[in-house]
Amino acid sequence: MENTELHVVITARFFTDVKCFGPGIAMLLTRVRTLHSLRAAAMDMGMAYSKAWTILKEAERGLGFKLLHSTAGGRGGGGATLTEEGERFLAAYEAYTRDLKACGQDLFQQYFSEFIQP
Amino acid sequence: MENTELHVVITARFFTDVKCFGPGIAMLLTRVRTLHSLRAAAMDMGMAYSKAWTILKEAERGLGFKLLHSTAGGRGGGGATLTEEGERFLAAYEAYTRDLKACGQDLFQQYFSEFIQP
Repeated sequence: MENTELHVVITARFFTDVKCFGPGIAMLLTRVRTLHSLRAAAMDMGMAYSKAWTILKEAERGLGFKLLHSTAGGRGGGGATLTEEGERFLAAYEAYTRDLKACGQDLFQQYFSEFIQP
Repeated sequence: MENTELHVVITARFFTDVKCFGPGIAMLLTRVRTLHSLRAAAMDMGMAYSKAWTILKEAERGLGFKLLHSTAGGRGGGGATLTEEGERFLAAYEAYTRDLKACGQDLFQQYFSEFIQP
């Protein structure tokens, strides 16, 4: 059921000289972790492969390290897995956003209780 | 100087059945508070008056109360001031985002220290 009561949605975006990480690339990497393919991950999100590729390359450039290993060829065609640094950054992002949302919910109760319908 | 080190930008957006409050309307109201005019506030942000009007009306509809009083006519032409509820909501938003950002910075140090250049 749709939540029509006043509620807050918190977004954390990471920048260096450019935007390099946020909810989009995080979701993409999460699906690569399961599907072992950037193409399959993009398709699963209804995103064009070219867009997924661009988001990935911009994130890697901004962060200064590779997020995915490409595994080319073989019987099943090429695939992708997260690099060790990619795994660590995604895990940090997941823990960070989980705790940030918890903090944001506590503060929401503190500051907005008068605006929430009883 | 531009910050090229890894850093986080946190955004809080408020919804009921629709998006009703976020950084844009908050900035607009902050300027109305100083300039006593929606038109002057929009101009100060480089925003079309029609867009400012739409953002305001959508926020008021989503929240279910008026944010601005219009003060029509008189020598200096019409102006605008925040309603009492508008003042309270804006103050809650300002306190909320201040505390959320502080929380977000603490968590950033906790989870991303290994990714920040020494």
